[in-house]
Amino acid sequence: MGPHPAVAAIRLAVRQALADLPPDSLVLVACSGGGDSMALATAAAFEAPRRGIRVGAVTVDHGLQPGSTQRAVALLTRLRALGLDPVEALGVTVDPDARSGPEAAARTARYAALDAAAESHGAAAVLLGHNLDDQAETVLLGLARGSGPRSLSGMAAVGPRYRRPFLGLSRDQLRTACHQLGIEVWDDPHNTDPSFTRSRVRHEVLPVLEKQLKKGVVEALARTARLCRDDADALDAWAEREAARARTPHGDLDVTRLSDLPPAIRRRILRRAALDAGSPAGALFASHVETVDALVTSWHGQGPLSLPGGVEALRRCGTLVFRRPPGVSEETRL
Amino acid sequence: MGPHPAVAAIRLAVRQALADLPPDSLVLVACSGGGDSMALATAAAFEAPRRGIRVGAVTVDHGLQPGSTQRAVALLTRLRALGLDPVEALGVTVDPDARSGPEAAARTARYAALDAAAESHGAAAVLLGHNLDDQAETVLLGLARGSGPRSLSGMAAVGPRYRRPFLGLSRDQLRTACHQLGIEVWDDPHNTDPSFTRSRVRHEVLPVLEKQLKKGVVEALARTARLCRDDADALDAWAEREAARARTPHGDLDVTRLSDLPPAIRRRILRRAALDAGSPAGALFASHVETVDALVTSWHGQGPLSLPGGVEALRRCGTLVFRRPPGVSEETRL
Repeated sequence: MGPHPAVAAIRLAVRQALADLPPDSLVLVACSGGGDSMALATAAAFEAPRRGIRVGAVTVDHGLQPGSTQRAVALLTRLRALGLDPVEALGVTVDPDARSGPEAAARTARYAALDAAAESHGAAAVLLGHNLDDQAETVLLGLARGSGPRSLSGMAAVGPRYRRPFLGLSRDQLRTACHQLGIEVWDDPHNTDPSFTRSRVRHEVLPVLEKQLKKGVVEALARTARLCRDDADALDAWAEREAARARTPHGDLDVTRLSDLPPAIRRRILRRAALDAGSPAGALFASHVETVDALVTSWHGQGPLSLPGGVEALRRCGTLVFRRPPGVSEETRL
Repeated sequence: MGPHPAVAAIRLAVRQALADLPPDSLVLVACSGGGDSMALATAAAFEAPRRGIRVGAVTVDHGLQPGSTQRAVALLTRLRALGLDPVEALGVTVDPDARSGPEAAARTARYAALDAAAESHGAAAVLLGHNLDDQAETVLLGLARGSGPRSLSGMAAVGPRYRRPFLGLSRDQLRTACHQLGIEVWDDPHNTDPSFTRSRVRHEVLPVLEKQLKKGVVEALARTARLCRDDADALDAWAEREAARARTPHGDLDVTRLSDLPPAIRRRILRRAALDAGSPAGALFASHVETVDALVTSWHGQGPLSLPGGVEALRRCGTLVFRRPPGVSEETRL
């Protein structure tokens, strides 16, 4: 008799995620001790040796909850018992007053720690336990930002470093797999804390969408993410080619070239140019890019525009110039 | 003293929507008697003569509710009193058993009637009263379908025939304008009937999103629509160019050319080819297109694929062929 279907599903997902890695490479599982990442660690411990791949694990201790360090130590013991090696707890501190908000600041700190661990261990890939429901929540959060297809793209299944084998499996499937494998899981109280937007999306928004729109809205959101990601990738690549063509020897952008492009491509080029000049991504909105676009499409002698981060955009002699005047610090102009 | 800001806003919106039409052209307002389209008719009656444009109105009588015909006749009288000419009631019948569902069938019948009226009157444009909230609802309905950026594009502000001047104005602003102008409005009971998906989106889903995500989610959804529409337009144009390049003298698609394209572009070409061969748009899903795509990207000698509408896709001698075998009727294969 084979394994339970949910167990077979998590193993297959991990097997496919490891398929292109060379033998003897090391993968690290990012593990919180929650159900999803414990299922991931367990499946990786089962699959990786069969492909001659080494598997370790890292856990991030934000130090935000009482007892988090003891929990991290106990988790390392469990991961070692699964046969994972190396296992490591990464302590990170999060600025509670970060301008991006505490959730975003914690995420940034977590990925920085995982990046550093991957570098120091020479890992070929880091596996993350995000599931189908997480993806649907991410799409809804992106939708609320309203910044277009890229923000609806959710999380990538396979990136240069991070891989998410479970993006096609539901939270329920993963819970069942844990139950079948006798994995004891820890429920992060943050997941049900309504002060976190993601928790409200999970417990308040998605159930209403499922009830009022139709069953299968989670799958529809995940499909939206895949389609939007492919589209955004294609458009970004197109914009990059056109930006190279539109660039003058001085590095400015030729207005005639820009005006021949579809708005979707032109605005991507303008956004990229503003970022390259020093505008911070989190502060540069679609509305800023639209005012820059008006320098191309509705030119009537407008003066220089102020963009976030002290960047100036201006039209001069048939070119668009993005610059940061000397002596203007980011803080004073934001 | 100028008009109330809400009245000024609806007039400005209509003025901008008429700006590129030549003098003496005729525009038709599609008017249900509800607040939005009454505001539209009133603003058009005010603005159009100032630009030498003629304005008429049409109302669609679905005959679905008791008293609908008397209401249509009374509405024509009111529209005539505003100075609109010609005014016409269009009777349409909706197949209550349509496979697409009653809402979609009614919409299709409505637009067909408006198209015919525009043709017969030689109208340069038809104005529709859809507002910002309608747009947000449309995006959410598209999201639930999960068919990617095109289904998130909502409604176009300006199309070849239809124009929606109020897409940037909220339902509340339009109500205020009606109140200020003393316009008596009729509330369509369908708008609050929970058996209609759109009504549930309006009354159950959007308020939850506003409460749980953030204020301004309606604006974020409308912005998403604009950005997605620009992206989808750019990608469709790109796909059309590449399809012309990939086509062989026999009209098939060259696999080598296709395989060099980004997935987002290739899948658009494959979808278009299936539609051109006779697959009905409403039945051809992303999953069908993905199986066709596998003929390009994961070729291992697969046999012909059956697509909706009795269309077959197969790979032969380095080309993809889409065909409808003779003798296969659409009905028997759907």
